[in-house]
Amino acid sequence: MADFLPKPLQNVIDGFAKLPGIGQKTAQRLAFHLVRSGDGLNKDLGDSLIKLKEELAFCSTCFNITIDNPCSVCSLPTRDQETICVVEEPMDVIAIEKTGQYKGLYHVLHGVLSPIDGIGPQDLKIMELKNRCDGKTLEVILALNPSLEGEATAMYIQDLFKEMPSIKISRIARGLPMGGDLEYADPKTLIKALEGRSGF
Amino acid sequence: MADFLPKPLQNVIDGFAKLPGIGQKTAQRLAFHLVRSGDGLNKDLGDSLIKLKEELAFCSTCFNITIDNPCSVCSLPTRDQETICVVEEPMDVIAIEKTGQYKGLYHVLHGVLSPIDGIGPQDLKIMELKNRCDGKTLEVILALNPSLEGEATAMYIQDLFKEMPSIKISRIARGLPMGGDLEYADPKTLIKALEGRSGF
Repeated sequence: MADFLPKPLQNVIDGFAKLPGIGQKTAQRLAFHLVRSGDGLNKDLGDSLIKLKEELAFCSTCFNITIDNPCSVCSLPTRDQETICVVEEPMDVIAIEKTGQYKGLYHVLHGVLSPIDGIGPQDLKIMELKNRCDGKTLEVILALNPSLEGEATAMYIQDLFKEMPSIKISRIARGLPMGGDLEYADPKTLIKALEGRSGF
Repeated sequence: MADFLPKPLQNVIDGFAKLPGIGQKTAQRLAFHLVRSGDGLNKDLGDSLIKLKEELAFCSTCFNITIDNPCSVCSLPTRDQETICVVEEPMDVIAIEKTGQYKGLYHVLHGVLSPIDGIGPQDLKIMELKNRCDGKTLEVILALNPSLEGEATAMYIQDLFKEMPSIKISRIARGLPMGGDLEYADPKTLIKALEGRSGF
């Protein structure tokens, strides 16, 4: 089979198949699509991929992906400097920015605590979070995923900030998703929804 | 939002999102994966994509994707020159080659007849199929998808070859897939399976 497919085609298929969630069949489909489509599509994507990391860096303050250091959020004086929202990954920043509601700063941990995978506090940007908190910081919002690891990481950070009682540590609400159906909600979500109930 | 993501990252996301079956979210996930992973991955894929079509061509005999013309199947004298297997797309050739059972030649139509999409016989390599059949050709196997368009295209080709009665036109069997369950088979498949029944 390896001899059967032309090498340039096989190279692209192999490259796609290395990406997460893309198997051999999907990789083939993508590659053949590019062969059939106009010349621009494969060259543009190829060019973008090569240049992807040439200018990219991590913000030395919030550790989000950026071209400029500090990043566009950290360097914007109009952002609320008193609030830091802690997320696991840069993609989470995008999700929150898309709401258009949050005006504070961010801090990207680049993962969560996971003893099974050998990921401890020193592998994440946790100390960097503590160190950047100064007199200006009033609240740290933990917006970690409601997973076992996310919960453990939130607990760890909460514990760490006990030395700094002037800073309020909060967590985003866990409960029924909008449009969700109580009948089909899992018990754990329902428990969190009940616990997190609020007045009108 | 457009301002929020660094341009090199947005370029890669936009490029991925143009591929079939890849939405905005998946494109983001792929791009962030490449940012996090070693430098080689994005550059290798980028390089392969740019070079993808530099050497690729269509075989002038069977219209499969190839570097050499005629392609490695058409130019191999050990392949059975008397049989031509007609498929819709180059990917179908791979699927059949993977069986390791077929030793004849191929012919890639590059689509099927679809009046709704405005695809007529002149848009496919149908005349090229007829023209390449000579005294050597004994059988044309139609291995088109069992879709409405595939069936119509098969009928059209069968009709076209009535002028050449020395060439046998056959179709691959439609029936229950191996490991399939008769109970869950749809009526149309079951009808084809009954019609195509064979002795032991």
